[in-house]
Amino acid sequence: MADEVKLHGVAASPFVCRAIIALKLKGIKYELIEEDLSNKSADLVKYNPVYKKIPVLVHNGNPISESLVIIEYIDDVWKGVPILPHDAYEKAQVRFWAKVVDDKCAPAVTKAFISHGEEKAVAELHEQLQFLENELNSKFFGGDNINLVDITATFLAYWVGAAEEALGIEVLNKDKFPKLTKWCDNYINCQAVKDSLPPRERVVAFFKKQFDKA
Amino acid sequence: MADEVKLHGVAASPFVCRAIIALKLKGIKYELIEEDLSNKSADLVKYNPVYKKIPVLVHNGNPISESLVIIEYIDDVWKGVPILPHDAYEKAQVRFWAKVVDDKCAPAVTKAFISHGEEKAVAELHEQLQFLENELNSKFFGGDNINLVDITATFLAYWVGAAEEALGIEVLNKDKFPKLTKWCDNYINCQAVKDSLPPRERVVAFFKKQFDKA
Repeated sequence: MADEVKLHGVAASPFVCRAIIALKLKGIKYELIEEDLSNKSADLVKYNPVYKKIPVLVHNGNPISESLVIIEYIDDVWKGVPILPHDAYEKAQVRFWAKVVDDKCAPAVTKAFISHGEEKAVAELHEQLQFLENELNSKFFGGDNINLVDITATFLAYWVGAAEEALGIEVLNKDKFPKLTKWCDNYINCQAVKDSLPPRERVVAFFKKQFDKA
Repeated sequence: MADEVKLHGVAASPFVCRAIIALKLKGIKYELIEEDLSNKSADLVKYNPVYKKIPVLVHNGNPISESLVIIEYIDDVWKGVPILPHDAYEKAQVRFWAKVVDDKCAPAVTKAFISHGEEKAVAELHEQLQFLENELNSKFFGGDNINLVDITATFLAYWVGAAEEALGIEVLNKDKFPKLTKWCDNYINCQAVKDSLPPRERVVAFFKKQFDKA
């Protein structure tokens, strides 16, 4: 039986994009079921009653929610390019840093933009980004190839730049974070990533509307 | 070379207890390095500079932070009783529910107690607990044996009862959550769990002090 892979989400979401990148890295064909977030589908609420959030991956009828859980599932099911390392200690480090990006950096980024670049919020974000800057010692967080940490940080590589443009402020300062800046460039130019990202003008327009600057 | 396993933490922490239970399930000998949380050791800050939190497991000199990352590491490194299932879909479900317990239930429990059982906070907690109640269809979340979800929910099985006693309120209502109540009993009577829990009176005393009811 051929695999049936459906992904409930919206293409402009960085969380959905994480799952798309993982699927593209593995060369898996999928159908994107576009959700209207102001009127979520009955399927979405049925598949993810706890969070009622996108993305939800449905593999042969079996739903999986939460982007990092989805990525680990994709890596477990489909062989090919590995997204997590095989070694147990390296794997633990990768899970730890993905968690840092998700739990610490993502809310700090949101806060920095919602506050329109307020000094304290940006300083808090910079504190988190500095940990990532120190951690980056190769082309990607995964070394020569992207891994779970890179994919988790997709919002930093692409959405942050679009939000900076929409608001006319800079939060990921090139001089302060040269390694992260270089990483953004390397990352969004990976074929699987490039093929997964929504058009930049769409993301900029979304942020302009979101931050009431249209 | 014999494994050197050190665990930085305090025995009364439910997060540290998660790691202890995983180690005991696998039959691994470890040394508990007691931390003074008001004056954290230089080692703790060095090992976990991002969160500066316990527990930190140090295996042959290699530090691992964040309790769920530690448990997956323990399960990856030491064979024997599995803590996560082998099947990729079941594993994804277990990771999802562990995340729900950690991200949704744990903060809701804290809020319910900090508010001294305020109606809205308890209602929010009950909404989360209902998801777990619905999910429980066997002795443990792991079926006949405990798994990552059970271990993540250790605070529900033991710390919640102690906090209820300290504050003289009930938040995990026996009539409302009969399956969870039965699970608490089954779980704290597992040998590996029983051997890992701090004395109940110590936890009650901690909460009395914490909630200013000494």
